[in-house]
Order: sequence, then structure tokens, then C-alpha cells
Amino acid sequence: MTDSELMGLALEEARKAAALGEVPVGAVVARSGEVVAAAHNTRETEKNALHHAELLAIDAACKKLGGWRLWECELFVTLEPCPMCAGAIINSRIRRVVYGAADTKAGCCGSVTDLFAMPFNHHPVVEQGLRAEEAQELLQAFFKDLRARLAARPKWKPPV
Amino acid sequence: MTDSELMGLALEEARKAAALGEVPVGAVVARSGEVVAAAHNTRETEKNALHHAELLAIDAACKKLGGWRLWECELFVTLEPCPMCAGAIINSRIRRVVYGAADTKAGCCGSVTDLFAMPFNHHPVVEQGLRAEEAQELLQAFFKDLRARLAARPKWKPPV
Repeated sequence: MTDSELMGLALEEARKAAALGEVPVGAVVARSGEVVAAAHNTRETEKNALHHAELLAIDAACKKLGGWRLWECELFVTLEPCPMCAGAIINSRIRRVVYGAADTKAGCCGSVTDLFAMPFNHHPVVEQGLRAEEAQELLQAFFKDLRARLAARPKWKPPV
Repeated sequence: MTDSELMGLALEEARKAAALGEVPVGAVVARSGEVVAAAHNTRETEKNALHHAELLAIDAACKKLGGWRLWECELFVTLEPCPMCAGAIINSRIRRVVYGAADTKAGCCGSVTDLFAMPFNHHPVVEQGLRAEEAQELLQAFFKDLRARLAARPKWKPPV
């Protein structure tokens, strides 16, 4: 599969997250263009701070391939990885990361900081912006809907 | 339990890791001085890049407490957290981190970088150096033994 097709699968994963009421982020671990693992954010559903799409995909890839060094693997993710996920990419020795939309609030591939440029023991190749508009549209639609639902909530009134 | 006692439990976890041939690191999540979860590094045994002590303890704490916001919890860990684990601490909103030995190669609470000082949406309180000598001794003994075993391996000879 091409990079664009693999990012398409990550976008499908992001749509699954949105359908669950989760922030829509999806990730795919691939090796030689073949899908190894795919996952989406389930933080709210699973009530777990670690359940970001990238962490779940890396966990599944380690289990499937039977080793912790994913040095032949590439990660496709719809949103720029946060510190935890960028750290997991370093720890699992993933060779290349392709992400869609930038995350100005938590992104660690250049937005808030660039963990891959620091002197850790692994430095993945990074490409940004692949199908970023689609990833961004999913996120914007999710947060627009969330704000509308919050605004429509009954206002709290102090007890008399 | 006191901070020192909670770090003592983290050191016991680190010893369990050493007994498995794993880099000896242990972690405890506590709330109001009571243990919520304890874990040790099992990266090699479980063949999983995510199986650092902190991540396993945070995962267990989310499951035990039934939520992803561990804002009442504190983390005690024998070694300074790596980028992945420091990121997981931010994501899980842990209020305070106490660590033992510094990690000059991967530590993200000041050694390589300080993720908690960056403009992410959560800033835990950090204390360093609690029972650091014990944590350091465990690590030094582990690596000394590893080097001895590597040096004692039969040398590879080219086939005639």
C-alpha cells in the first residue's frame, strides 16, 4: 500500500474514534507497505490515559511481531504525536513517522518541542502534512459539535 | 505510608525486574499515602517497548480507579522517567512525581530535557533524589553483571 492509502486507513480509524465520542485520532503501524496494526483513540471509552491511537497501535504491533524493536516499521498517524506517543516511537525504534495535522498544543515533532531532534538513542525520520486537511476537518467537526453540545446544556442554578 | 516507604516498594519492584534479567526500574502509584498500583520494567520478558515500570503502574491505576485522570495520585519511581513515561504522567494528570536516580541518557525531568517545564496542559510537581543511591546501586550491579556476561561469551570465529 502507498503512504496515502495507509494514512487513509489511519483516517478510517479516526472516524471510528469520532463515532465513539472520542477525539478523532487514528494510527497504523506498517511494514513494507503492509498493515501490522491499526488503532484509534479510546481514552474516554476505556477510561485510560494511555489509550492514544499510537500507543495502542505500537502495543498491538509488538504483540503481533513478537518483539519490542519495530525497526522495520513505519507509523502513520492523523495527528502530530504527543510527548507520550513520541517517546513510545523512540522506545520502539520505529524508523519513520508520517503524520497529518499539526498539534500546536501538545505536538512533539516540532510544534511544542521536537523530541526526535534531541540526543535520545533513536531518531526516526518524520514527514508531516499527509492528508492533513482530512485529519483537521475530522478534528474541527468533533470540537464544533462538542462546543455546541456544551452550550446546549441546561445552565446550573444555585439552590434557593 | 511515607514517601521513603513508597520509594522502598518501588525499589522492591526494581529488584523483581533485576531477577528477570530486566533493567531494574520499579514504580508505585499512590493516593493519600496508600498504594494504588505497583509495577516493574518487563520490556524483555514481555517483548514490548511500552512495558516500562511507570506505564504499567499508570495503566493499572487507571483500571483500578476507573478513570484516566489520576489527579489525586503521586508516582514514585526509582529512575528519572523517559520521554514516553514523562508524557504518560502529563496525560494522566498525576500531581506529583518523586524519582530516585537521574537518567543522563533519557531522563525527561531535567537530564536530557524537562517536559514538565514545557507549555503542556499539566505540570506535575517533581522531587528528585529520594533513595537515589539504592536505585543507582541496583542499576550499576545490573550493568556490571551484563558486561561480565557479554565479555564471557565465546568469541565468534569465521567458518573455515
